[in-house]
Amino acid sequence: MNNINPTASLIVIGDEILSGRTQDANINFLAKELNAIGITFKEVRIVPDATQSIVTSLNILRSECDIVFTSGGIGPTHDDITADAIAKAFDLQLEVNQTAKQIIQERAHKQGLELNEARLRMARMPCGSQLVDNPVSGAPGFIIENVYVFAGVPRIFRAMVGNVIDDLPHGQSLTSATIKVFRPEGELASKLAIIAHENPEVSIGSYPFFEEGILGSNVVVRGQNMALVHRIEAAVKRAFSV
Amino acid sequence: MNNINPTASLIVIGDEILSGRTQDANINFLAKELNAIGITFKEVRIVPDATQSIVTSLNILRSECDIVFTSGGIGPTHDDITADAIAKAFDLQLEVNQTAKQIIQERAHKQGLELNEARLRMARMPCGSQLVDNPVSGAPGFIIENVYVFAGVPRIFRAMVGNVIDDLPHGQSLTSATIKVFRPEGELASKLAIIAHENPEVSIGSYPFFEEGILGSNVVVRGQNMALVHRIEAAVKRAFSV
Repeated sequence: MNNINPTASLIVIGDEILSGRTQDANINFLAKELNAIGITFKEVRIVPDATQSIVTSLNILRSECDIVFTSGGIGPTHDDITADAIAKAFDLQLEVNQTAKQIIQERAHKQGLELNEARLRMARMPCGSQLVDNPVSGAPGFIIENVYVFAGVPRIFRAMVGNVIDDLPHGQSLTSATIKVFRPEGELASKLAIIAHENPEVSIGSYPFFEEGILGSNVVVRGQNMALVHRIEAAVKRAFSV
Repeated sequence: MNNINPTASLIVIGDEILSGRTQDANINFLAKELNAIGITFKEVRIVPDATQSIVTSLNILRSECDIVFTSGGIGPTHDDITADAIAKAFDLQLEVNQTAKQIIQERAHKQGLELNEARLRMARMPCGSQLVDNPVSGAPGFIIENVYVFAGVPRIFRAMVGNVIDDLPHGQSLTSATIKVFRPEGELASKLAIIAHENPEVSIGSYPFFEEGILGSNVVVRGQNMALVHRIEAAVKRAFSV
């Protein structure tokens, strides 16, 4: 498939995901958001709360993709090391962002919470960062160059994505058509391969499913040209008498 | 945390995950299985159905980890390119595995299905592969050196993990204790940092939660020494009067 859309990737920073304690809820959300506005989601990495893992992944992905998101590790506790790791990856000073400090201060004041060192830790960001509003718990995320550093808590992650999505470089969104065929993939494969070969402008995927004891296949046609996707959808239906 | 356990990683091969069409169900399952038997789950990558992405990820992770799992892309359709990519990464010939061919043949015969070229495609594996039984749909997974190549369909992935788990190099499993504190992380952070600093033999993580309008923190203590984990659990409880 010919695709000149901008590309994005996500680094999920979280021992709790790798230990199995927590089921990730951000990957699928971000995947849908990006695809809907024509950004190609190119790769996800889930790495532990370890500076070197974050630095290495970030430096590769920020050179390979137009946009990199990170989730997790920007809270107030000792295991929140994302801001430090991002600064290190960019070789930038970590500084206390005065606007972030003020936001955290005001929120603590309003809620009668102590403005302690831990809370102020959340104002530390690489020099030159741009803030991303956190309507849930106050402490902002930040953007540095092409890297979007967001919280891991799904409610906050979603709100932060919502805050930036309209300003991201949009591409052409993909049209997708799913054809459900109650026959196993092995019986569709040869005809499907021909259709895929003849139509390189779209991507054609096939995903097996089990339903009521029957092994079937979901054939998914995706492409930027909506009319073409629907023509090929019709061709797939004809081929398998659906 | 001092940790000499074997390490593992997972490459999820799937456009359908990156497009948001499908919510992954294998990462969390594998994370739990590995942690239960003392294998450190070091990294996950989700990559598209693209040979070069698979080859690059695999060659890095198989040198960095004791074990690499892959999920997805071993079915009969044109978009199933995992076996080819694995062979390319290892610079090995792709051959028709005769035992795999026989398994696929017998199953097709038993079910009255046509043994076509597409189905036989699933018997193609890098030279020297060891088979992993697939009790769900027949076509086996395979092991080549330290790489375990499994199906993406959760039912099959789980069965394949179950088939190999007892033969994996076991480490010392981690004991984990979660202390639920109905106070925001910002109030626990300084005491928690001291406890973490004084006890480098364990890892202490803190994860915010929202429950009935209250922002609280789950403090998770993990380590190989069960008695120590419980001592530190008690210390955390004392520190926050839980």
